[in-house]
Amino acid sequence: MPSGPLPPELVEFLRSARPAVVSTVRPDGTPATTATWYDWDDGRLLLSMTAGSPRTRNVRANPALALTVLGEDWYDHVSVSGPVVELRDDEGLADLDRLSLRYWGTAYPKRELRCVTALVEVTRWHSWGDAGR
Amino acid sequence: MPSGPLPPELVEFLRSARPAVVSTVRPDGTPATTATWYDWDDGRLLLSMTAGSPRTRNVRANPALALTVLGEDWYDHVSVSGPVVELRDDEGLADLDRLSLRYWGTAYPKRELRCVTALVEVTRWHSWGDAGR
Repeated sequence: MPSGPLPPELVEFLRSARPAVVSTVRPDGTPATTATWYDWDDGRLLLSMTAGSPRTRNVRANPALALTVLGEDWYDHVSVSGPVVELRDDEGLADLDRLSLRYWGTAYPKRELRCVTALVEVTRWHSWGDAGR
Repeated sequence: MPSGPLPPELVEFLRSARPAVVSTVRPDGTPATTATWYDWDDGRLLLSMTAGSPRTRNVRANPALALTVLGEDWYDHVSVSGPVVELRDDEGLADLDRLSLRYWGTAYPKRELRCVTALVEVTRWHSWGDAGR
């Protein structure tokens, strides 16, 4: 698995709104995965999580995260991982709305949610198939 | 996240050959993800891994695995996790061929691979959207 900054062609791949699966690690050392929205934010990965979710609890205890992003053909995929370098309250759901606009074209309908935003520095990555070519 | 055996409607969902992303945990405690084939094998999840791959190294040290399986609409998804209860050499690539037949309709073309098969007992799961309905 290569380490270091993500190559530009893979950044381009991540810029599209694609299906993705995130993994965090539970306090007992086992992995947990779920489908997720994400965005690429000025060199960092941006994800939104419900404040009380297992994912949020996991990254508070172990600030490490991995994400696999699938292309139109899912055999084309890019996987990235690295530390959560910032975890902030999403006041006014600005980051959730950003993701909702990106994927759905509209603000997120449930306004009563409490969310946190995780920003991840990508330190390792691998790609497969035609992703980024 | 519910625990215990996977409900029958979610087993049905897993029986189809769907896009999936697997996570293991590296020796340094960080998660690693990648896209993968899988099958449902008599109550256990079956995955094939190249013998020398990071995934295989990870589960040998920490036999815990998580998988998210996506529906035709990726908002419909099922995530499962649990211990790797068996890790065996895939003699003759029988398990890899089983997966290749399931996803591609043909035996796996690269016959020189050395693979191991992981069987996972699902102890936790969650679903989202219309998966299994």
